[in-house]
Amino acid sequence: MTRTKPAGTPLGDDFHVFDTTLRDGAQREGIAYSVTDKLAVARQLDSLGVGFIEGGWPGALPKDTEFFQRAAAGELALEHAALVAFGSTRRPGAKVDEDPQVSALLESRAPVVTLVAKSDRRHIESALRTDVDENCAMIADTVKYLVDNGRRVFVDAEHFFDGYAFDPETALRVLESAASAGADVVVLCDTNGGQLPLQLADTVREVIARTGLRVGIHCQDDTSCAVANSVAAVQAGATHVQCTANGYGERAGNADLFAVLGNLGAKLGMPVLPEGKLAELTRVSHALAEIANLAPDTHQAYVGHSAFAHKAGLHASAIKVDPELYNHMDPAEVGNDMRVLVTEMAGRASLELKGAELGLDLSQRPDAVGGAVRRVKELEAHGWSFEAADASLELLLRQEMADDALETPFELDSYRVVLDRSADGHVVAEATVRVGVGGEREIATAEGNGPVNALDAALRKALVPHLPWLESVELADYKVRILVDEPGTDAVTRVLVESRDGEQEWTTVGVHANIVEASWLALCDALIYKALRRNESCPS
Amino acid sequence: MTRTKPAGTPLGDDFHVFDTTLRDGAQREGIAYSVTDKLAVARQLDSLGVGFIEGGWPGALPKDTEFFQRAAAGELALEHAALVAFGSTRRPGAKVDEDPQVSALLESRAPVVTLVAKSDRRHIESALRTDVDENCAMIADTVKYLVDNGRRVFVDAEHFFDGYAFDPETALRVLESAASAGADVVVLCDTNGGQLPLQLADTVREVIARTGLRVGIHCQDDTSCAVANSVAAVQAGATHVQCTANGYGERAGNADLFAVLGNLGAKLGMPVLPEGKLAELTRVSHALAEIANLAPDTHQAYVGHSAFAHKAGLHASAIKVDPELYNHMDPAEVGNDMRVLVTEMAGRASLELKGAELGLDLSQRPDAVGGAVRRVKELEAHGWSFEAADASLELLLRQEMADDALETPFELDSYRVVLDRSADGHVVAEATVRVGVGGEREIATAEGNGPVNALDAALRKALVPHLPWLESVELADYKVRILVDEPGTDAVTRVLVESRDGEQEWTTVGVHANIVEASWLALCDALIYKALRRNESCPS
Repeated sequence: MTRTKPAGTPLGDDFHVFDTTLRDGAQREGIAYSVTDKLAVARQLDSLGVGFIEGGWPGALPKDTEFFQRAAAGELALEHAALVAFGSTRRPGAKVDEDPQVSALLESRAPVVTLVAKSDRRHIESALRTDVDENCAMIADTVKYLVDNGRRVFVDAEHFFDGYAFDPETALRVLESAASAGADVVVLCDTNGGQLPLQLADTVREVIARTGLRVGIHCQDDTSCAVANSVAAVQAGATHVQCTANGYGERAGNADLFAVLGNLGAKLGMPVLPEGKLAELTRVSHALAEIANLAPDTHQAYVGHSAFAHKAGLHASAIKVDPELYNHMDPAEVGNDMRVLVTEMAGRASLELKGAELGLDLSQRPDAVGGAVRRVKELEAHGWSFEAADASLELLLRQEMADDALETPFELDSYRVVLDRSADGHVVAEATVRVGVGGEREIATAEGNGPVNALDAALRKALVPHLPWLESVELADYKVRILVDEPGTDAVTRVLVESRDGEQEWTTVGVHANIVEASWLALCDALIYKALRRNESCPS
Repeated sequence: MTRTKPAGTPLGDDFHVFDTTLRDGAQREGIAYSVTDKLAVARQLDSLGVGFIEGGWPGALPKDTEFFQRAAAGELALEHAALVAFGSTRRPGAKVDEDPQVSALLESRAPVVTLVAKSDRRHIESALRTDVDENCAMIADTVKYLVDNGRRVFVDAEHFFDGYAFDPETALRVLESAASAGADVVVLCDTNGGQLPLQLADTVREVIARTGLRVGIHCQDDTSCAVANSVAAVQAGATHVQCTANGYGERAGNADLFAVLGNLGAKLGMPVLPEGKLAELTRVSHALAEIANLAPDTHQAYVGHSAFAHKAGLHASAIKVDPELYNHMDPAEVGNDMRVLVTEMAGRASLELKGAELGLDLSQRPDAVGGAVRRVKELEAHGWSFEAADASLELLLRQEMADDALETPFELDSYRVVLDRSADGHVVAEATVRVGVGGEREIATAEGNGPVNALDAALRKALVPHLPWLESVELADYKVRILVDEPGTDAVTRVLVESRDGEQEWTTVGVHANIVEASWLALCDALIYKALRRNESCPS
């Protein structure tokens, strides 16, 4: 955890791919990472080979403080990336070694720190309520203090482009204060996101010419130009680019890491990732959408499900003749496909990889892998999706690895759900389930505010007397998607159930024409998964 | 319908905002416009003040042929825009006046035609299987023929940037053939979407310098740079920009009309729309998402629900001091808000506007409008959403306008749904409903493949003997969203039901903790809506 430079990329420290999904990306409305999520995000980004992973703001946000603690305690072993803590400079008029927020940066044990600094005089005066001299002293003091304590420091010059347009001397003085005190990179931030590429490139070029400093770029997407602005800045001389996975970020978001890497790596031929890693873009993008609990953007450049899919009648026949003429690049370069069918993603290699991730060694079991691929393809053709349902996928893999049927702690028999709506609008849901457990047949009835809730309650009522450890499992989230294939055919319903037991979270999937049955399948998988996991950790 | 130039924009014919949502945008996977949808899209775009609306490809697609017929027959009265038909040049070796596809362009009666032409030698040879001479003759013949028949003609130079890089002489010859034959604008198309802004701007500049022609730009979003590329092309001298609403289009999509207009109009200060129309961007964007049956992108630049929303703790306190420092522009300029709450969108003005759209004159009924605003806010606070449920909103408005309770053709009493899953995995759903209709109490039971299906079937069984016209109503689509407010609180379920009767489609909404009850509410609204509409058109 003491790496301060990217490892494994041909460009080494000469070019920085800096990811801020966990800090700036987490500002997106609708994202609420748990610490476990944050660790998973960092592992995915590291597997892609980014150079820097900004993990959050220790001291300011308790979850971020915990993330750095757990990372330093050994939960995060990074192969390529250096871990970065984000924070602000000391407060106006305060001493840097007495500022608790600055101490928290050191305590995070992150080897690299990004400090945010004001570079727009209006913000210095109206938000910080201080003057340019003190602002520059705050920056210089804090950079020097962190460098003296062995940290590598980058400085985010907030609102740089607006500030430079308003008062270029102040903006440049801020950059120089940071660099003189020992900051390695000064990052020009389009914090309000109002820039357009031609002007932005001119400014970047001008700043580099005037200061000679190593310059980075950080763009927000308020003009829908964040990716273009980031690439234009690199073409204008920036050697450090800050992005977020899938462009997550507040307002319109940030520059999308995957599009920026696609443009730099595939279009401009810059070896910005370790060799072979560009082909992981699609996989990592989808995995990070899953962790963020957001649907992947099907039309996202490079990595979207539709990014290389053709519908236009004008092209369809010609594409067969020569696909290269109708794609801007070979989709395989970024791990995508002319038509990435979900089923095609469940290839042998990815299932083996997934198995390894889940702790199942499939390398000696080609039969089980083959069986699992067939089963996944078959199920996905009927609307199942395992992209977001690791626990169901694990059950499926275990089933294929088992010689006989997988041994489960209970057998499901049948259920009945009754929904009654009275004339006054009052609705009651009641479920009765029958299960075999501990050698007995149990029947239990419970009410709920809806059919799924009632089924869940009845199932627990039947099982808990035999399997008391089930009590710790709770339903954390429940998602429904109606899948309509073709007009006129019957729709099926896909249900995702997220469960947790205080230690772990896991997701299961169920698909059926009947929404209640789809939910039942996912609920049962969730409890079976818990039972299997429990058997492994406590073999009694 | 004989307008060939934009009306009402300060720039007049000097700058073209050319929308191709109905042609190129319709290539997006998941969009399937009906002819009625297409007319509604065109009306929205015209109300925004775009200069050209490309309606489709008459002759090639039956729906597009019908769209132009109905437009020419008077169903589309355009205030600002000229209507454009899209088509291809005559076939190789054929006579232009004998080519049925070219005749269909004339028969469409569209005053403006965009012809697609190949400008990449590789496509000419491999897809068209002809040579450059014949390709140029095809273009020149077709342009001249259309111009001689009184049409204004633009030419889309397909794959221009790739073609120009591969063989600039051929690419330029294509442009010149088009212009010499009478095409007003030659449109440089980044058909495969692989361009980046700095290079693209250089090419546009070079082409204008070498040919002196009036140049347009058409960008696809495969590098996530379509908006930036379009703006850069305009800055490099293009005076005609082709976009689609919300960036709809195949693969990663096209340049988003609203972001391009925001950038040109608000950032670069070009009066590209009639005065005051920039403030309509947000409204029109959302309306077009509704018609396309796609969820609006909450993080879309300029027009997204979150485009000016702030979450960052770092900013939140400072924003109160001076909001201008934390937004790249005043959101009101594009009709957006620092925080457009759904409830805030249901203001008096927008409800009156909506009422007018639905044929309800609310201008003399301030009491009803006030009541409706209160009711909408109250319901939206509980998870209802009327953005996509016009029919439910209309029922609500009618309810507020009625002196007493709205008269409905039937009264709902109660229902019971029973779901049985047997041990062999077989699932049966059975619903019994009780309704009052035609002065009688009816009870009916039906089965279905799920609870909602069964309820729908039972409801029809009870009602159809009394109200036979209900038989034409069918459930076209069904969407479910689970709304989780805060962890730990109970989620509610929002159901959208889309119904159709062969003439019309309409959407209703229901919200309840119980998914079946939420569906029931939306189903009942759908039938009541049909009944009210029917009473109006056939007052017998």
